[in-house]
Amino acid sequence: MMLKLFTLLNLIFISLVNVQLVEAKIRRYKWEVKYEYKSPDCFRKLVITVNGRTPGPTILAKENDTIVVELKNSLLTENVAIYWHGIRQKGTPWFDGTEGVTQCPILPGETFIYRFVVDRPGTYLYHAHYGMQREAGLYGSIRVAPEKPEPFSYDYDRSIILNDWYHKSTHEQATGLSSIPFQWVEEPQSLLIQGKGKFNCSQLTAPSLNVSSFCDASKPECSPYVLTVVPGKTFRLRISSLTALSALSFQIEGHNMTVVEADGHYVEPFVVQNLFIYSGETYSVLIKADQDPSRNYWATTNVVNRPPKTPPGLAILNYYPNNPKRLPPTAPPPGPYWDDVQPRLNQSLAIKAHQNFTTPPPPISDRLILFLNTQNLVNGYRRWSVNNVSFNLPNIPYLISLKNDLTQAFDQTPPPNGFNLTSYDIYNIPENRNGTASSAIYRLSFNSTVDIVLQNAKYNENGSTSETHPWHLHGHDFWVLGYGEGKFDMYKDPRKYNLVNPIMKNTVPVHPYGWTALRFQADNPGAWAFHCHIESHFYMGMGVVFAEGIERLGKLPSSIMGCVGH
Amino acid sequence: MMLKLFTLLNLIFISLVNVQLVEAKIRRYKWEVKYEYKSPDCFRKLVITVNGRTPGPTILAKENDTIVVELKNSLLTENVAIYWHGIRQKGTPWFDGTEGVTQCPILPGETFIYRFVVDRPGTYLYHAHYGMQREAGLYGSIRVAPEKPEPFSYDYDRSIILNDWYHKSTHEQATGLSSIPFQWVEEPQSLLIQGKGKFNCSQLTAPSLNVSSFCDASKPECSPYVLTVVPGKTFRLRISSLTALSALSFQIEGHNMTVVEADGHYVEPFVVQNLFIYSGETYSVLIKADQDPSRNYWATTNVVNRPPKTPPGLAILNYYPNNPKRLPPTAPPPGPYWDDVQPRLNQSLAIKAHQNFTTPPPPISDRLILFLNTQNLVNGYRRWSVNNVSFNLPNIPYLISLKNDLTQAFDQTPPPNGFNLTSYDIYNIPENRNGTASSAIYRLSFNSTVDIVLQNAKYNENGSTSETHPWHLHGHDFWVLGYGEGKFDMYKDPRKYNLVNPIMKNTVPVHPYGWTALRFQADNPGAWAFHCHIESHFYMGMGVVFAEGIERLGKLPSSIMGCVGH
Repeated sequence: MMLKLFTLLNLIFISLVNVQLVEAKIRRYKWEVKYEYKSPDCFRKLVITVNGRTPGPTILAKENDTIVVELKNSLLTENVAIYWHGIRQKGTPWFDGTEGVTQCPILPGETFIYRFVVDRPGTYLYHAHYGMQREAGLYGSIRVAPEKPEPFSYDYDRSIILNDWYHKSTHEQATGLSSIPFQWVEEPQSLLIQGKGKFNCSQLTAPSLNVSSFCDASKPECSPYVLTVVPGKTFRLRISSLTALSALSFQIEGHNMTVVEADGHYVEPFVVQNLFIYSGETYSVLIKADQDPSRNYWATTNVVNRPPKTPPGLAILNYYPNNPKRLPPTAPPPGPYWDDVQPRLNQSLAIKAHQNFTTPPPPISDRLILFLNTQNLVNGYRRWSVNNVSFNLPNIPYLISLKNDLTQAFDQTPPPNGFNLTSYDIYNIPENRNGTASSAIYRLSFNSTVDIVLQNAKYNENGSTSETHPWHLHGHDFWVLGYGEGKFDMYKDPRKYNLVNPIMKNTVPVHPYGWTALRFQADNPGAWAFHCHIESHFYMGMGVVFAEGIERLGKLPSSIMGCVGH
Repeated sequence: MMLKLFTLLNLIFISLVNVQLVEAKIRRYKWEVKYEYKSPDCFRKLVITVNGRTPGPTILAKENDTIVVELKNSLLTENVAIYWHGIRQKGTPWFDGTEGVTQCPILPGETFIYRFVVDRPGTYLYHAHYGMQREAGLYGSIRVAPEKPEPFSYDYDRSIILNDWYHKSTHEQATGLSSIPFQWVEEPQSLLIQGKGKFNCSQLTAPSLNVSSFCDASKPECSPYVLTVVPGKTFRLRISSLTALSALSFQIEGHNMTVVEADGHYVEPFVVQNLFIYSGETYSVLIKADQDPSRNYWATTNVVNRPPKTPPGLAILNYYPNNPKRLPPTAPPPGPYWDDVQPRLNQSLAIKAHQNFTTPPPPISDRLILFLNTQNLVNGYRRWSVNNVSFNLPNIPYLISLKNDLTQAFDQTPPPNGFNLTSYDIYNIPENRNGTASSAIYRLSFNSTVDIVLQNAKYNENGSTSETHPWHLHGHDFWVLGYGEGKFDMYKDPRKYNLVNPIMKNTVPVHPYGWTALRFQADNPGAWAFHCHIESHFYMGMGVVFAEGIERLGKLPSSIMGCVGH
């Protein structure tokens, strides 16, 4: 009898799901953003929460659904803007959420309504895109279910966001970065897995301070994140990174991972033990719970690319029905050597579009832009630059000034299309490190095909310093045509481009002393940021803005214009 | 020869001064507001500076001059607004600088121009009036020289602002105050005299922390403030308080002070050894340098009214030509006993208008409003209230919503005109401590005469707790008609009002378990805040807004409307 009822309920549920499958829905969210004290890694500090949480609520939607987020800013004196990372905003460039590019910031007390369609299945993110507020904890997941079957199957579906975590406020960090002398943010205090980490409070022992009042390792809030699996089953793990700084490796003790999705695109499956992941990237991996089911296992994340001073982040892979709090009997597996670039480059090269889901790129491009990443001095301030120009956001968002021909609103001199490929020595810093700052943008012909080559170089005087920069593009996906070591060769390297099955992504690493080549179609009317996803780097000027098809846009919503003169 | 040249230069200087005396000037300032690391009390923290300084630059002007401040907000994600404390803004209510009342906040990157006339001589202040930003260090002095002779003379003129100082950020403090459970800001870490104090860094000794990197008692930045005097000369010391919380006593070792000005009005002179001063008040005192000139003396400030947990603030009165850094040979004099209300009440009662500068109040008033100060619970949050109603600022500033009849912008139900004088027991907290929150305002008939009686009471369940609240009125001065102990008697007490020579002020203390009676003329078209000047108390709802003569206002400047929908 019970079984019959269960089956009946199940059938009703399945038919409800089917109804869902055929009709795009409007999914409405009411979010309140405010400061709260939280202890994500046991250390108590102010964070920016969404409805009381960091990470914020997960948006669960289906392909072609419309998402409506009523966002109330309950910060006291600070504005806010939220970016929908990976959502292309076709037809709604004003709801991209990028302060200074697509909208004015949302004032305290104001309610702003974001409304956009999630037109592709996959794993996406949202986070603050104003000042350095992302680091204050304002971020979360977007998961879009497909209308059509996927090229793989699984029993369970989970999302985790990896992050690094600082104890200083974003105000303190930003002030240090824009001071003379320059004060670097330094390495993060901990790594978070889905918002949970563990800082070693005993480091803070001070006779006169009541350390346990602000650092308490016994708080349930900072107990390890638990991922429960059923033995024998396969689960899909959607892994994203929103680190402020760190490049990461992620692994699950004793379990291989099959990479099947990257930034919302299906990948020709390949198996890894360590998944390297950079800020702004999302992956889906399949994991089979096929190990000894009588115990739990570690899931760990480690810093790579920079000398790690931050302890690994630890979560528990819990085999049901073991106690989820039971620690694994083994030591957490060590991460890969931080400075070994080759396996990271190899992973980048291994990511190809799934054979049944390949969209070949246009065979040739209309325009090539070279971007050299360097650190410069601008009026004595340390800044990141692209082709020696450090990016400054204007007061009036580009979308508004472009649409309304406000030519005074930003620098009209076009920024450089490249750098001197012949003479520039990427292994040395130039004698003259001075650069300029500008709010100029790259205007792209509508529907043109654009190639971008990002070039890394030695960036300061200390040792052999070139680092991975994850570059992220708003409003588009791009084809990843190739990665290379050393200086890009404009004649030889393009012949090696993958034009057959390149993966499409929105975030891509540029490896130390290497280059990365991308192609995209400028087919989305609007103004779109393209920047290093490291929070401090973009703050220090490591970004550009593309604009295309502005003339095709209708009237802009007045809600985005809160900072434009009356 | 040299003497002749000197005399000549002096004559030229004097004639320049004379030119200044006959013609009102426009005084222009360009200010940039931003976050910087400073160590006002040796402890390094983020502060909000004006042109790199806290306290900010002093505005020196003459009666009837026009002040133009071009204020650039260079904070990263925070808005700002600056209030011109004590300036009545006759004809320019939109430049009062009170966020939520007279203007929208100024966005990051925006430049806002304040333009107003300083129409009376005296000692005034400016400070942030948005969130709790005043405490972050955004404050300074305004000194307005008279056109006519003053009723006293002196050789030198100096301004100092007293303040208390916290090491937590204003974001942290505000979050604690609006949390459940409530987190009080606690006592300040130090007292500052003209922006300088001394925190005892050795309290922070921690083996693993590099304390000297953020707390260093040897920094010149936190050396004591030095007030240099020439033996035998008289100097005018303009003393103001902008404390976040503390009521203070100020004294100069071995020197009496003659009080001659209060909040821009001449006082019938009286002599004190300790000057009691509350947040928002300004005084001028005359001091004669008539003590042993071979040594220096302490100037000290101490917490009164609350059990002091903060060490005294110390400055040096330096007799020229002694070394200004030479510490006085004696111990700093102790302050008065913190809980002794009588001398503080006596000082309040001693302050009368100077006999030659008396403006008698209208003999009767058109309206009496009683304000009972209590602490209530509003939906479980701890809040300060006036007549059981806790004040909430609306999103659209009153000046804009009143002028444009936006009746949805704030609560239209008038707030209570008083409380039950007969039944309310000021010595006990009520059984039901619940209150409500409201953005309703008091509408005053234009040119009517309004009496306000502020009543203090026991405010929480612990011991004998009633505290001094300094109430400050925007846009007007009021006559201080009387102070009393215990519950106000509506029939007997008004007969004792001083209608002959009451001082006019803009800030007045309400003593523990006491009342204070004021009278003012509602003759300044605009919307004006009236609130406890303790930063956390106003944040917790201890304030009201008056509006009068809105129909007489011309078009509002569009620059104040940055937060109003497009």
